[in-house]
Amino acid sequence: MEDKKNFELLYEGKAKKVYKFDEQKLLIKFKDDVTAFNGLKKDQILNKGKINKKISKFFFEMLNKEGINTHYINDYDENSFVAKWTDLIPLEVIVRNYTAGSFCKRYGVKKGLIFDYPLIEFSLKNDELGDPMITKDAVLLLKVTTEDILDEITSISKKVNDILSDYLKSKGIILVDFKLEFGISKNDNKVTLIDEISPDTCRFWDANTMESLDKDVYREEKGDLLNAYEVLLGRLDI
Amino acid sequence: MEDKKNFELLYEGKAKKVYKFDEQKLLIKFKDDVTAFNGLKKDQILNKGKINKKISKFFFEMLNKEGINTHYINDYDENSFVAKWTDLIPLEVIVRNYTAGSFCKRYGVKKGLIFDYPLIEFSLKNDELGDPMITKDAVLLLKVTTEDILDEITSISKKVNDILSDYLKSKGIILVDFKLEFGISKNDNKVTLIDEISPDTCRFWDANTMESLDKDVYREEKGDLLNAYEVLLGRLDI
Ligand SMILES: Nc1ncnc2c1ncn2[C@@H]1O[C@H](COP(=O)(O)OP(=O)(O)O)[C@@H](O)[C@H]1O
Ligand SMILES: Nc1ncnc2c1ncn2[C@@H]1O[C@H](COP(=O)(O)OP(=O)(O)O)[C@@H](O)[C@H]1O
Ligand SMILES: [Mg+2]
Ligand SMILES: [Mg+2]
Repeated sequence: MEDKKNFELLYEGKAKKVYKFDEQKLLIKFKDDVTAFNGLKKDQILNKGKINKKISKFFFEMLNKEGINTHYINDYDENSFVAKWTDLIPLEVIVRNYTAGSFCKRYGVKKGLIFDYPLIEFSLKNDELGDPMITKDAVLLLKVTTEDILDEITSISKKVNDILSDYLKSKGIILVDFKLEFGISKNDNKVTLIDEISPDTCRFWDANTMESLDKDVYREEKGDLLNAYEVLLGRLDI
Repeated sequence: MEDKKNFELLYEGKAKKVYKFDEQKLLIKFKDDVTAFNGLKKDQILNKGKINKKISKFFFEMLNKEGINTHYINDYDENSFVAKWTDLIPLEVIVRNYTAGSFCKRYGVKKGLIFDYPLIEFSLKNDELGDPMITKDAVLLLKVTTEDILDEITSISKKVNDILSDYLKSKGIILVDFKLEFGISKNDNKVTLIDEISPDTCRFWDANTMESLDKDVYREEKGDLLNAYEVLLGRLDI
């Protein structure tokens, strides 16, 4: 887990370190740090980075095969992979199939209610502002991105939801909600799915027990986080 | 300003008391209370109720003439008017022509930037939850109201913005943003513009000095609130 001494560190975030791999590629290293509530709660969980890298890699490879343009290029080592370098679009796209988390708190509704169709929400990716929710119109009026790109992001997000939900269902897991990020690839200027797809950024519930196999175990102190992540990993074809 | 002893008090809110006038009508009494920050800051401003009633009445009559279906029926006394009784749709519709207030705080942008087109935002009207912002999709998924009604509310809100902005412009006043509420009339089941349209619920800026003629004078302690409301009143054809 030593640092990537040969590469220039471009950015250290809450869960990952991002290095320059070459002019068009990044090396993305998954840390063992876990945070919640916009960084207020913080811990180190040995091996979390490794597991999240494996799960992210697995989902990105699945999506690449299904024709989704993701940043994942190739594996590098235990806790990192090589990815397309993009210009980040500072939005978080949240896709919700069931009520949970901030949605329940915000609107005072029960958790676990199924939506008639997936709900897509946007937040401005800005830690200082607490990633505030933003409407499509406000995204356009503030010129965060263009309407074409926003439409493409929305349609990709729905496809990702379909692909992941179907696969996970076959493994007895409900994809409750998840967060996606997008960028514009430096190489080919294409809208690209970036960042990670892991139990840090998705809610996974066991379809039988309704137990969380994700960061909610940490947020709500419901048991051993690493154990939950390992259970999830064991259910996937990794 | 004695209470309306002959009428049953149905609801006392932060700024108004609502009485049953008859089976299909309400008596809406404007109080002298002023609150800000979801009730955290609170005061009494003598004559504020009277002024807000006058201004609301004036705008509602203007909108009625322009074919907008508002709840305003007739004047009653200094601080109250008779209105159509509706089933409240628990949404606040915010129309923004310029950046200001919570929008600036939420997204970290400068105040006074003009939007390319009016921005419509929705909040769930719920004091306990702090009137959280809500997307159109979430409104529909939570079944707060139907898509038809939401579309009608949106189109009425835009028309109201056009009518009020144009009129105010001719008086040297910028309509920066405002909040509307809607209900379904008990009498004819129609989507109806309710509540108030006053310097408590709108931001008005003097087009020359950019001074606030609205509740921001109170929120930001920029001077004498009553004086600002009286300046506004003096500019209107009342
Ligand atoms: N392919 C990519 N191109 C550009 N930026 C990326 C890419 N993948 C991830 N990122 C960004 O790198 C950072 C990853 O580190 P992370 O710990 O998640 O940061 P944060 O705490 O800001 O969420 C995020 O800001 C993410 O948006
Ligand atoms: N025509 C109407 N029909 C039904 N409810 C109305 C009508 N006009 C206003 N209301 C409601 O009456 C209340 C007015 O009092 P107010 O002091 O503004 O309350 P609040 O503090 O809840 O905003 C609000 O809840 C408003 O939605
Ligand atoms: Mg992140
Ligand atoms: Mg009110």
